[in-house]
Amino acid sequence: MTGAEEDWTLIARACAKVSESRLWRMHEEMAAFGAIPGPGVNRQAFSAEDIAARRAMLAWLKPYGFEIFVDDIANLFIRRAGRNPDLPPVTTGSHMDSQPRGGRFDGIYGVLAGIEVLFALEDAGLATEHPLEVVAWSNEEGSRFAPGAMGSMVYSGARRLDEVLDSQDGDGVVLRDALAATLAATPQARPRALGSPAAAYIEAHIEQGPLLEQQATTIGVVTGIQGTRWFSVELRGESAHAGTTPLAVRRDAFQAAVAVVNELNALVAAEPEDLRFTIGRFDVGPNTPNSVADRVSFSIDMRHPDAALVRRVGDAIMRLCDGERLGCRLSIVENFNRPPCAFAPDIVDAVEAAARLLGESHLRLASGAFHDALFMNDICPTGMIFVPCERGISHNPAENAAPADLAAGARVLLATLAGLATTHA
Amino acid sequence: MTGAEEDWTLIARACAKVSESRLWRMHEEMAAFGAIPGPGVNRQAFSAEDIAARRAMLAWLKPYGFEIFVDDIANLFIRRAGRNPDLPPVTTGSHMDSQPRGGRFDGIYGVLAGIEVLFALEDAGLATEHPLEVVAWSNEEGSRFAPGAMGSMVYSGARRLDEVLDSQDGDGVVLRDALAATLAATPQARPRALGSPAAAYIEAHIEQGPLLEQQATTIGVVTGIQGTRWFSVELRGESAHAGTTPLAVRRDAFQAAVAVVNELNALVAAEPEDLRFTIGRFDVGPNTPNSVADRVSFSIDMRHPDAALVRRVGDAIMRLCDGERLGCRLSIVENFNRPPCAFAPDIVDAVEAAARLLGESHLRLASGAFHDALFMNDICPTGMIFVPCERGISHNPAENAAPADLAAGARVLLATLAGLATTHA
Repeated sequence: MTGAEEDWTLIARACAKVSESRLWRMHEEMAAFGAIPGPGVNRQAFSAEDIAARRAMLAWLKPYGFEIFVDDIANLFIRRAGRNPDLPPVTTGSHMDSQPRGGRFDGIYGVLAGIEVLFALEDAGLATEHPLEVVAWSNEEGSRFAPGAMGSMVYSGARRLDEVLDSQDGDGVVLRDALAATLAATPQARPRALGSPAAAYIEAHIEQGPLLEQQATTIGVVTGIQGTRWFSVELRGESAHAGTTPLAVRRDAFQAAVAVVNELNALVAAEPEDLRFTIGRFDVGPNTPNSVADRVSFSIDMRHPDAALVRRVGDAIMRLCDGERLGCRLSIVENFNRPPCAFAPDIVDAVEAAARLLGESHLRLASGAFHDALFMNDICPTGMIFVPCERGISHNPAENAAPADLAAGARVLLATLAGLATTHA
Repeated sequence: MTGAEEDWTLIARACAKVSESRLWRMHEEMAAFGAIPGPGVNRQAFSAEDIAARRAMLAWLKPYGFEIFVDDIANLFIRRAGRNPDLPPVTTGSHMDSQPRGGRFDGIYGVLAGIEVLFALEDAGLATEHPLEVVAWSNEEGSRFAPGAMGSMVYSGARRLDEVLDSQDGDGVVLRDALAATLAATPQARPRALGSPAAAYIEAHIEQGPLLEQQATTIGVVTGIQGTRWFSVELRGESAHAGTTPLAVRRDAFQAAVAVVNELNALVAAEPEDLRFTIGRFDVGPNTPNSVADRVSFSIDMRHPDAALVRRVGDAIMRLCDGERLGCRLSIVENFNRPPCAFAPDIVDAVEAAARLLGESHLRLASGAFHDALFMNDICPTGMIFVPCERGISHNPAENAAPADLAAGARVLLATLAGLATTHA
């Protein structure tokens, strides 16, 4: 056997140690922290539920003797030593916090898949040159303390720690205090500086979209995170009595908005079908049945993996939403513009190769949602692995995934990480 | 001269006594009760402002010695005696209460025009066979205590007094108590039974629409009040992540609602242009920028003077709003259905003849809005006189009307009332 073939044989043997039932049981145990009816999870960042979940996870790990670190924003690192302690770790992970009415897989799967990889490597007795680390990023959802992706942003330097410490939740609790309580709850974790280097970062996550399920494919090889532009559109007309005012003389902001939406839909229909275009918020004033609307404001969320397309379509939307429609003044404001992020080609290839070698069906796709990987991509070679979720439903208690798919994702994760970290029998 | 010509000469002489400045000044003085910035009025039914306005008006009338009556719902009647006290009165009037952000003319004009008619008849020394009465109906707007048109509904028997006495305002004040305070504030008014007979009823009102102004016409000869049907339409889809869910697989309740609105607009476009069709309320859930909407509900307000058309178009709307659109379940509920009311042809002719004899430009039109006349039409021959209001704006502090138009309306009112009540030098 060549060296590569020998490596692969070792890695495949470790992959076989990935336990579908152990991984599923960890999900069930974590889902108890912040359980809400039906069968969702509400585990807000730095909450009692978040802290309890962190403590329970560290308790599971105790027998293995992994080193535990924590940084100043409470990102938690679980380190399996490598042969060469001078090399930076190959890192995997995701987040443990959830949406207020979230599910049992978003985020936590990436952390638990990483832990399952460590367990399987232990079971197989497979060593790596690089250390391997599993990270649980703090506050990815941002539902309690804004902004989201806080842990990875502060870690990667996209935002400074002191910029977020005064963030308050809806009850007036200051992040600084909630963070201190979180840090105090895991005394076994050794403090570590923000931004400690990583050799690479791979994040496993449920797809949060329907593509893999539709195409009966197990592994999504994520090529990057699509670009996003957010807009607010406003129309100003004039209120009038619904009974007395002829249609021809109205300046009806609602009907003008519908006309604009029709134009926007026509614009979108001419673009590739993987363009995401959403009008999710639509507010009418005065919003009474017998008055013609004098104002409408609505949101546009537009996303695509191709930077040029994001630029072109976004600019076309801005040009379209100007001037007058049906006697109403039309205007638009851009609230957010993040170009697409492309993951490192070597990492994408490595994930794809792992899926192929393991015989898992796979396809390349861009992530529609943001992830911590977006910020890790700024500081080290980064990639992601998606697994299917039922009907693409996420951010919802009904979020669901198949145990076999979760295990398949963990095996691809193991193979990718072990390949990057260089293995030894 | 014939008798009719002699009558008309007398009436024209009395019309010449209508004082544009006196009528305008009364509007200005009334606008002080409940004045809000800009330059509107907030004079809610049975409020301190309503009571103060009633007391001020009765104070103006004191020197004339008119009899004052009040019924159990605080409708206030000002009676100028006729030669034959056994004849029922010919009645005019409207309401004194306003919308919360209302104007200086809606309602109060009909009361003040009636008073100006009494003043002019006094000035001209013209007697009538029938008594003439000016009525100020209680609570036409219904903004504080539901339902609206309460005074005329209870008077005409469309609703019983005991059905409304427990109505509460937003602060928990019970109508029974506010009504008692209102009745106690005008001790000079003699109690009168509900539903006292009237020989005829003529109501003067601002148009609350733009037709008269557009056609440079001073007098609207109102043929009736158009029929109205109110609907609530609901769409149920499924929420999804704006970034991850392809457009083709969404069940987007917002986009489905826009498709339904387009169909409704096409249906309406094939109907006569005097059909009123308004979508004034439109609510989206969860109404967040990065989630596909899972539910929309919106209102339809549809009105037309022709009963068959109201029936046909309303039924077509109900048939249209059924089934599925873009994977979303579509349903409709009818909340209200009032067929058109046609005023007595003799009264409509009498108003038109008065406008013609006075040389005022005039046109026949149906009222788009409800008025107390809708309920008086159930119990006596009824008609209405409209005068232009600026750009058709009403239920708005910007509501405005020209002093000359208000005076012209009062002259047409005088001529109509005097003709019906039979005049004597």
